[in-house]
Amino acid sequence: MTDPSAPQMTAPVSHPEQDGRGQDGRGQIIDGKAFARNLTATIAREVEIFHDRHGITPGLAVVLVGNDPASEVYVRNKALQTHRTGMLSFMHMLPESTSQAQLLNLIDRLNRDPEIHGILVQLPLPKHIDATLVTNAIDPRKDVDGLGEVNAGRLSLGLEGIVPCTPLGCLLLLRHELGSLRGLDALVIGASNLVGKPMAQLLLNEGCTVSIAHIDTRDTPALARRADILVVATGHRGLVRGDWIKPGATVIDVGITRIPTEGGKTRLVGDVAFDEARHVAARITPVPGGVGPMTIACLLRNTLTAARLCAGD
Amino acid sequence: MTDPSAPQMTAPVSHPEQDGRGQDGRGQIIDGKAFARNLTATIAREVEIFHDRHGITPGLAVVLVGNDPASEVYVRNKALQTHRTGMLSFMHMLPESTSQAQLLNLIDRLNRDPEIHGILVQLPLPKHIDATLVTNAIDPRKDVDGLGEVNAGRLSLGLEGIVPCTPLGCLLLLRHELGSLRGLDALVIGASNLVGKPMAQLLLNEGCTVSIAHIDTRDTPALARRADILVVATGHRGLVRGDWIKPGATVIDVGITRIPTEGGKTRLVGDVAFDEARHVAARITPVPGGVGPMTIACLLRNTLTAARLCAGD
Repeated sequence: MTDPSAPQMTAPVSHPEQDGRGQDGRGQIIDGKAFARNLTATIAREVEIFHDRHGITPGLAVVLVGNDPASEVYVRNKALQTHRTGMLSFMHMLPESTSQAQLLNLIDRLNRDPEIHGILVQLPLPKHIDATLVTNAIDPRKDVDGLGEVNAGRLSLGLEGIVPCTPLGCLLLLRHELGSLRGLDALVIGASNLVGKPMAQLLLNEGCTVSIAHIDTRDTPALARRADILVVATGHRGLVRGDWIKPGATVIDVGITRIPTEGGKTRLVGDVAFDEARHVAARITPVPGGVGPMTIACLLRNTLTAARLCAGD
Repeated sequence: MTDPSAPQMTAPVSHPEQDGRGQDGRGQIIDGKAFARNLTATIAREVEIFHDRHGITPGLAVVLVGNDPASEVYVRNKALQTHRTGMLSFMHMLPESTSQAQLLNLIDRLNRDPEIHGILVQLPLPKHIDATLVTNAIDPRKDVDGLGEVNAGRLSLGLEGIVPCTPLGCLLLLRHELGSLRGLDALVIGASNLVGKPMAQLLLNEGCTVSIAHIDTRDTPALARRADILVVATGHRGLVRGDWIKPGATVIDVGITRIPTEGGKTRLVGDVAFDEARHVAARITPVPGGVGPMTIACLLRNTLTAARLCAGD
């Protein structure tokens, strides 16, 4: 049995046809899984070259507090993928009862550890710990989630820094599909610190005309119908309907909701009504297999970036 | 002769009528000068109360490098107004030949000086000095211009911090005129780090649906015609015409261009064609006397805020 998450050097990455439509007349599906696999393979090669040049192996420390089952799966995947690209991978799994002072103490040690180039604290944290305080305690040069105030500020100011993984993954897909984004009308639905706000800033830095819609927006469908690029990150399954979409638009669906199926199993669905949207959009990411796989790939990329900055590479 | 910039406790602040129109049927002029005067008077009282409570007088250090005549006027005004509100005011006027290392050394001393709660380095700096490096060398707790990466990040993440003076001034005017901004459609024209980007983030934090237009935007007039709030900060005099404006909108003109007049003198004009716009907008800031006076008032406010944060007030 082959492991579908293992890097495959030969995996093809989808290329849009001229009009962005598949042979069946529907919008093309953006294969985030294949793109992420190629990106991960590229990173693995670059890790080797980096090691040859500097004698340094990039290292990522992943910190989990408590026993949230989903978080346990996420951190295990992150640590495993890090290991597979040839980087050093450290996991710190702490009990729910860990105090804020203990966690800050660990972060301080990791900040000073020369083997560690990236630190990721898995969110959410237990309620007795101030997540903002902890996130900002990570040395900005090691903040590979890009969620601290310094990296948020550098992104906002258009300076070089570490960009949050999910919006970075969306941007890499968009650049690959569309080339230059300059002058395109973009709408981001959802204004979270994790996705919506950094996504809007990335698109602005690319020269898009950017709008952000959220819970207080009066007429999101009307805004969506004008968008060449539509990025949806709300967590409301199926929120965006086919008639919200401008014909020919590129749709990036960041939402992931797990729903039960008839056979007693579960499956993942996005924030966009995929079957409807695909008839209108030129290109669209599926759920699963769209943005999801890009997030971990971008974490690996950020860890390599952090090691490079550290080495003055 | 009375000094028109001196705080006048009795100065009235304009209040919009129910429909936001003046008796002449045109949009109401937002009196930024009166608002700034009242704000400054309030700050002067709060400085006194703060001193009574903590025995501390807030102190602002303004640093000028070189001999740009406009900058000389600005820093003199800032230092003078600081002094007039009862705060300690320090000016450091350095020659054009000042090296980057010398400037960084001064900032380091000011960062460690307990009498100084706010540090402002007047921009632009001479070409041989890296303005980003200098701005980020200021202790974020003393960065009263709010232009460093930490305060930019805190604004972006919706955390408490120090907000750049000009967009803060615009927001105070908007809140005063409109009350809650939640759900309103806002367009910011101009995407600078100094005004456009922080303005967009402030409006987003207030619950507006925010769009940003800039040099690469295809159809700025169409976007403007949908905006309940229009903030213009481009430096292109008269760019925004009357037919760009949604009837009943509130227009904030940040632009300031000095143009020659017939008598051999000069006058200031904004980015909005004021006489046209006033027939369509419900409320509009004039140039001069709109946003301009708010900027220094907000610098004083930020200095007091910094002193308060320092004292744990």
